[in-house]
Amino acid sequence: MTDAAMTKKGLEGVVIAQTRLSKVFGDEGRLIYCGYDIHDLAQHASFEEVVYLLWHKELPTRAQLDDFKASKHDCTEIPDFIFDHMTYYAKNAHPMAALRTAVSGLAMWDPVPDDTTPEHIAHAACQITWAMPAIIAGWERIRNGKEPIASRDGELDHAANFLWMLKGEAPDALSVRVLDTYLILLADHGMNASTFAARVTTSTLSDLYSAITSAIGTLKGAAHGGANEAAMRQFVEIGAVENVEPWFRKARAEGRRIMGIGHRVYKTQDPRAVELAAIAEKLAEQKGGDVLKYFTIAKKLVEVARADDYFIERNLYPNVDYYSAVALHAVGVPIDQFTPIFAMSRIAGWTAHILEQWADNRLIRPRGDYVGPDHLTWKPIDAR
Amino acid sequence: MTDAAMTKKGLEGVVIAQTRLSKVFGDEGRLIYCGYDIHDLAQHASFEEVVYLLWHKELPTRAQLDDFKASKHDCTEIPDFIFDHMTYYAKNAHPMAALRTAVSGLAMWDPVPDDTTPEHIAHAACQITWAMPAIIAGWERIRNGKEPIASRDGELDHAANFLWMLKGEAPDALSVRVLDTYLILLADHGMNASTFAARVTTSTLSDLYSAITSAIGTLKGAAHGGANEAAMRQFVEIGAVENVEPWFRKARAEGRRIMGIGHRVYKTQDPRAVELAAIAEKLAEQKGGDVLKYFTIAKKLVEVARADDYFIERNLYPNVDYYSAVALHAVGVPIDQFTPIFAMSRIAGWTAHILEQWADNRLIRPRGDYVGPDHLTWKPIDAR
Repeated sequence: MTDAAMTKKGLEGVVIAQTRLSKVFGDEGRLIYCGYDIHDLAQHASFEEVVYLLWHKELPTRAQLDDFKASKHDCTEIPDFIFDHMTYYAKNAHPMAALRTAVSGLAMWDPVPDDTTPEHIAHAACQITWAMPAIIAGWERIRNGKEPIASRDGELDHAANFLWMLKGEAPDALSVRVLDTYLILLADHGMNASTFAARVTTSTLSDLYSAITSAIGTLKGAAHGGANEAAMRQFVEIGAVENVEPWFRKARAEGRRIMGIGHRVYKTQDPRAVELAAIAEKLAEQKGGDVLKYFTIAKKLVEVARADDYFIERNLYPNVDYYSAVALHAVGVPIDQFTPIFAMSRIAGWTAHILEQWADNRLIRPRGDYVGPDHLTWKPIDAR
Repeated sequence: MTDAAMTKKGLEGVVIAQTRLSKVFGDEGRLIYCGYDIHDLAQHASFEEVVYLLWHKELPTRAQLDDFKASKHDCTEIPDFIFDHMTYYAKNAHPMAALRTAVSGLAMWDPVPDDTTPEHIAHAACQITWAMPAIIAGWERIRNGKEPIASRDGELDHAANFLWMLKGEAPDALSVRVLDTYLILLADHGMNASTFAARVTTSTLSDLYSAITSAIGTLKGAAHGGANEAAMRQFVEIGAVENVEPWFRKARAEGRRIMGIGHRVYKTQDPRAVELAAIAEKLAEQKGGDVLKYFTIAKKLVEVARADDYFIERNLYPNVDYYSAVALHAVGVPIDQFTPIFAMSRIAGWTAHILEQWADNRLIRPRGDYVGPDHLTWKPIDAR
C-alpha cells in the first residue's frame, strides 16, 4: 500500500489515547462521563459536580464538594491587568479572539506557569477553569464601554455568577438552571478537535496555558464551536414561523446546509439535543416573546427537515448546537458570545484530558506524505 | 485487534496529509524543501527566498523577489497597540508566552481575521510572518524598560533588520549571515508537532492567527522548540572545556540526558547540524571570547559522547539544537529568546502548511479508547 492510500486526513478511527473521561455511543445516541449517563447528569448534577467528576473520576460527597467550591473561590477573580489589557483590544474583535488572547495573557499572572508537577498543573487547571466566566463577562462589559462587574462567587453558583457578571442583575432561577445544564451537557465529548489540539500542545511538554490557548483557537472554527452561532443566525434570518417552509425549500434548492442538523458521530438523536429541546421548550413557555418565536421556528424547521427524504435517509437529527442556540439566546447571551460559553463548559474536558495526557505522555508527531519533486538543482537568481 | 492494541499515542507512521513542502530522509541525513537540498539553500539562499519557495513551491526570479520584498515591507511594522499591550505583560514572562499573546492579539488589528478566502489567508500569512521580528525584538526592549526600535526594512534584509531592532546598532556581516542561515535551516521540517497543531486548528476552519497561536504554544514545549535553550544552559553549566569529561561522566552515571544529541528521525548526522557546526566554528574564530569558549565546550562534548558506546550503538549525533545554541548566543540573542527565534523561522513552514491544509481540508478528529466504567447509577449527593 502506498503512503497516499494510507493517508488519514481526518484521523478517522485512529485511536490516540486511552481515556477514562467520556464515551460517545453514536449508534445508540448515548453519552457518558466517567460512567454516568448524560441525562442523569443534566437533570440532577451541577456544573461544579461535573467538573469534579471529570477531574477526579468520581462524584464528590458533600464534604468534598464543599472543599472543592472553597478552592474554586480563590480562582474566580482575575487580576486587574487582564481587564486593563482588554482596553487595548479592538472593540469589534471576535469574543473568541479576545478569550484566546486573555487566557494566553493569564499565564503571566502565574509565577510558575512552566511548573509541570501534577500539583501545579492541577492548580493551573483550577485557575483557568474558574476564571473563564470573569474573562468572558469582562470582555462583554469592556467592549460595550462598561466596567467589569465583581464576582459574587461563594454566594452564587458558577452559572448564576456568570449571568450576574454579564448583566449586573440577579438572574432568574430558570435561566440559571438552563445555563448550568448547558455547561454540563457540553463539558466533554470524546476526542474532539479542540481537545485533541490541547493534547498535541501538551505532548511537547508545553504548559497548560499554551494547551488551552490552542484549544480555544481550535474551538473557534465554524466546523467545531462556531456552529451554534451559525444555527442562531439561521433562525434570525428565517424570522417568523410562516417563513420556515419557503426558506427550507429555497435552501434545499440552493444546496445550502441546514445549520445544527446532522453530526459525524451520532446516527440517531443526540442525547444532548434531547435535553436542550426540553429546556428550550420550558424557556419558550415561561419567557414568551422572542424566545417563543425562535423556539417555534426551530421546532418547525426540524419537523420540515425530518419529513424530507434527504434527512430521513441519512439519519440527520438536530445536534447539540441547534437548541442550544435558542437556549443561550433566551438567557441573554449575545450571539457572538455563544462559542465562548461553549469554551466555558468544555474547559472542564480540556483540562481533564490535559491531566490524562501528562500522566501518560508521548510526543504527538504524525507524518506527511511528500509528493513534490526531488534533486532539483540550485540556480543563482539571475540564471532562473 | 482491540482498540488498546491499535492505540498510536504518538501517531508514529500515521500519514495525515500529502505535502509538497519538505521531506526528511532520516537514514540518509538529507532534508529537502520543495525539491532543493538544505545544504544548497543554507549556503546560497536568503530567508526571504526560502519563504517565497515554501509559499510558491518555486524559487523566485529577481523581479519576483523584488515584488515579494515590496509586499513584505507593508507588514514589517506592527501597530502601536501591540507594544502598549506589552507594557501590561509581566516583566518576567517567558518570551514564548509574550510571543503567543502578542500574535493572538495581532488578529485584532486585522479588520477581517475570519475571512477565509485564499487571498486573505495569504495576506494574513504575510502579515504575521514579517511582523514576527518586530514582536520578538519589541518584547526584548520592553521587558528591559526600553523603547522598541523602528524597523529599517527595505534598507536591511530580514535577519539584519531583526538584529537592528533587537540592539539598535548596525549588526556585523557575519552575524547577519549566521542568523539568516539559521532561519533558513529551521524553516520547515515535515509534519512536526507545532506544524501539526497549526493544521489541527485550521481543520475546524479557524483563522490563521488561531492556528499560529496554537503552533507557538506547541513549539514552546521542552520536547520541541525548547531544546535549544536547554542545550545552551548545559554549555553554561559545564562552563569550561576542562570540565567536559568529568561533567559527561557524572551525567551518564546519573542517567541524565545530554541535551542536543539524538533525534527521533535522523539516524545519522542531521544535515542542519552539519551546517550549524561550520557556522559556529567560523563565529568562534572571528569573535573569540565566550563564543570560542562555548564552541570549544560543544565540540569537546560531541567528541566525548561520540566515543561512548551508548551514543555509537544508538546512532546519536548532535541535532539542530546543539550548535544553533552556540550560534544564537554568539549573535547576541538572550538564551530565553532562542525559542522565539526558532518560531521566527518556522513561521514560514507553519503558514505554508496552513495554506496546504486549507486547499485540501478535512476536520482532524481522532478517537479515544474509553477504558472507564459504564452504567453507573446516579446517587443524590447525600447518599454517596
